[in-house]
Amino acid sequence: MSNKSFSLSGMPDLSSIEVKKREYVLNVMKKIFEKYGFQPLETPAIEKREVLIGNYGSDADKLVYQLLKSGDFLSKVDSQLLNSDYNTLSSVISDKALRYDLTIPFARYISKNQSSINFPYKRYQMQKVWRADRPQKGRLREFTQCDADIIGSDSHWLEIDLIKVYDEVFFDLGLENVILKINNRKILEGLFKIFSSDLKFTEFCIALDKIEKKGKNYFIDFLKKNKVSKKNILLFELLLKQSISINDLDSFFSKKIKSKNDFIDQGVSDTIAVFSRLGNLKCLKIEFDLSLARGLNYYTGLIFEVLNSKVSIGSIGGGGRYDNLTSIFGKNIGSGAGISFGLERIIICLNELNLFPKFLYDSLDVLFVNLGDKEAILSQNYIDKLRSFNYSCELYPDNIKLKKQLSYANKRNVRYIAIIGEDELKSNKITLKNMSNGDQHKLNFNDLINFFKNE
Amino acid sequence: MSNKSFSLSGMPDLSSIEVKKREYVLNVMKKIFEKYGFQPLETPAIEKREVLIGNYGSDADKLVYQLLKSGDFLSKVDSQLLNSDYNTLSSVISDKALRYDLTIPFARYISKNQSSINFPYKRYQMQKVWRADRPQKGRLREFTQCDADIIGSDSHWLEIDLIKVYDEVFFDLGLENVILKINNRKILEGLFKIFSSDLKFTEFCIALDKIEKKGKNYFIDFLKKNKVSKKNILLFELLLKQSISINDLDSFFSKKIKSKNDFIDQGVSDTIAVFSRLGNLKCLKIEFDLSLARGLNYYTGLIFEVLNSKVSIGSIGGGGRYDNLTSIFGKNIGSGAGISFGLERIIICLNELNLFPKFLYDSLDVLFVNLGDKEAILSQNYIDKLRSFNYSCELYPDNIKLKKQLSYANKRNVRYIAIIGEDELKSNKITLKNMSNGDQHKLNFNDLINFFKNE
Repeated sequence: MSNKSFSLSGMPDLSSIEVKKREYVLNVMKKIFEKYGFQPLETPAIEKREVLIGNYGSDADKLVYQLLKSGDFLSKVDSQLLNSDYNTLSSVISDKALRYDLTIPFARYISKNQSSINFPYKRYQMQKVWRADRPQKGRLREFTQCDADIIGSDSHWLEIDLIKVYDEVFFDLGLENVILKINNRKILEGLFKIFSSDLKFTEFCIALDKIEKKGKNYFIDFLKKNKVSKKNILLFELLLKQSISINDLDSFFSKKIKSKNDFIDQGVSDTIAVFSRLGNLKCLKIEFDLSLARGLNYYTGLIFEVLNSKVSIGSIGGGGRYDNLTSIFGKNIGSGAGISFGLERIIICLNELNLFPKFLYDSLDVLFVNLGDKEAILSQNYIDKLRSFNYSCELYPDNIKLKKQLSYANKRNVRYIAIIGEDELKSNKITLKNMSNGDQHKLNFNDLINFFKNE
Repeated sequence: MSNKSFSLSGMPDLSSIEVKKREYVLNVMKKIFEKYGFQPLETPAIEKREVLIGNYGSDADKLVYQLLKSGDFLSKVDSQLLNSDYNTLSSVISDKALRYDLTIPFARYISKNQSSINFPYKRYQMQKVWRADRPQKGRLREFTQCDADIIGSDSHWLEIDLIKVYDEVFFDLGLENVILKINNRKILEGLFKIFSSDLKFTEFCIALDKIEKKGKNYFIDFLKKNKVSKKNILLFELLLKQSISINDLDSFFSKKIKSKNDFIDQGVSDTIAVFSRLGNLKCLKIEFDLSLARGLNYYTGLIFEVLNSKVSIGSIGGGGRYDNLTSIFGKNIGSGAGISFGLERIIICLNELNLFPKFLYDSLDVLFVNLGDKEAILSQNYIDKLRSFNYSCELYPDNIKLKKQLSYANKRNVRYIAIIGEDELKSNKITLKNMSNGDQHKLNFNDLINFFKNE
């Protein structure tokens, strides 16, 4: 068995430093979420199959991990079903599935607890999700999503707080060159109405959203194929050509779109209402991007996408305004807004830009080497004392060659080693050696804590 | 769809206060694990099916959640297999499974990274595990395990540190009446040798371990059924009757067991070596319990089990010394020792004993009520300032009836509400109301932070 790989691709083990990096980023987010009044929620990894399958669209459904029923899953399956297609069979032998995102479980939670939840309800949720996807850089099959949502209000203050959360999180992480791309679904809907073709709005959005990957011509060809009039195609080419400042949004659209269009007017005034009240941001640069449409069907107002312009990893966050999030569970809670952070991609950015603090790499304050039983027992007194002041330390458990113990200490990235040998037993002192500069100190029991406090 | 339950039993949603309680306990553990030199590890929720199925025994195997292969899982299944039993079929249509505990994934991780790991390797791991079990009090189908292990040394200092970790964690949580039951597999093995019946050692241990639930007679009957001699059954009755102090362990066994028995001698001296070096414990009471055998097959030396004598929830932790943890992966890393905490049961104890700190229940420092656009915009200035000092606050997003906003604040458990209305706009002050005692203060912008600092 020994030469086989027992690991799955796209499902990484996280070593000590990797866990610490994740925790560092999660703690920054958590602190800011809570400062903004968001409260934590956790939902289980496993949901009923019907909660997940059928709610993401057929492409995404394929990426949902389904669980076999426990026990004899065949007992109630008739043999005809066994020979049907795998989709039908899976709906019979599987009744549970693994969380694919945090949005549907959140919607299920709200629907279930609608009568006891205090609206407007603000929650953040930082949990793993699983997708049977092809692994690639920045895309794993197990990864952590970090979402914050407010539900139960159509006030613009929701979007304002969410943008500020983005701004503060990226600022606290030391990330510069962060761009928040925004667009408004209402503006897109208004433009779409002008076309009056056979196109569906979602198809239009999906094609528009592909501009970044496939270029503008792809989208123009798409419009042509769908019999959009030449005049309107020209209009769209014009709109996409220009970069649009948010301050000029109103005059830009009233110049370009001659006919009165309530959707565009509403979208523009919504967008301006948010941006006029944002105040000074710490690090975000905001860009209006008419081609931003985001695949998800549920956004209805402002849409966000966050990128780092220095690291080409794609979006590191996204979100927007939505209505009727809970409608698939037969409830209507009203409007809400939310954002999401992509933890793994943010970590890639921080790694590439060398932004993780150095202290994360320290693994131990003091390693006491083990030079014999008597020495080890005395070491324990020092260790107990250091630990009582919350310094991390340990005794090397075995009395083996010093060289081996020092090699362990080196690999382990310990800050100090402490030695109690024959000399130290006699003098009742320990020798403390700084592993980064080699400095040595002889200390007695009482001086030990002072040494660390003054360090 | 609206009257249906979309939730799964034994897989709870965790509301804000429940998440905070869990985080509180996990942070206490984390701090102490790291103080003792343990480093974090995380492994993925999903493992290859073969890593899990077959390694826990057939009873536990049934509780492992298996994942259906992605895509057309039937394409390579011949029709005969389809009609075979569900176990055979599942091994063909499933190739992944959900983590059942943290031990096997840990063993897989070590086997995989054997050449790069710095031994003795100390890791802690606090992650969810899933079991298709019948839910009951203190037993869920999704729950968190918290493990700490040291691997690559047979020194007694391992057990000493692990017992101290238990002691410090329970002390920091404020739990009194915590009993650490211990036994030693070597002592049990020695006793077992004396019997020389047809019994297997594991069967003997399993029966012994059931004494707590089924009583001593169950075990004595079991010995009789398995043709253990009368003399030896009498001996065992005698052994089980007496409570054994660890200090008297040596004399106890040398008195009772007349013949020379290396296993017992070794077990006794191992146990004493650990307990003679423990020093003063903060809250643990240690009891030697000869009937403690723990079901798991892999323990080879000292075994632990932790209980709270005031809350009848069963064990809140357990662990012990083991050898060859990684042998199922074809590697031999040598001896190790580990402990585990049962997070959910510890939370039940802390709840029943009312030991969670009160601050966990605060959800927001200040809620600013919304009395209109102008007022809200001014409120934002105060909110920005408070947030810059890390106080948590929010603006009620909508300008609705004050009564409704105050009712929201009440349900939300906010500490203060801040009011900016007409008067306050004129006087350039805010009214801050303490929600627990009703005290009101009029404060200007500059006094706000001082007020909170002096609170």
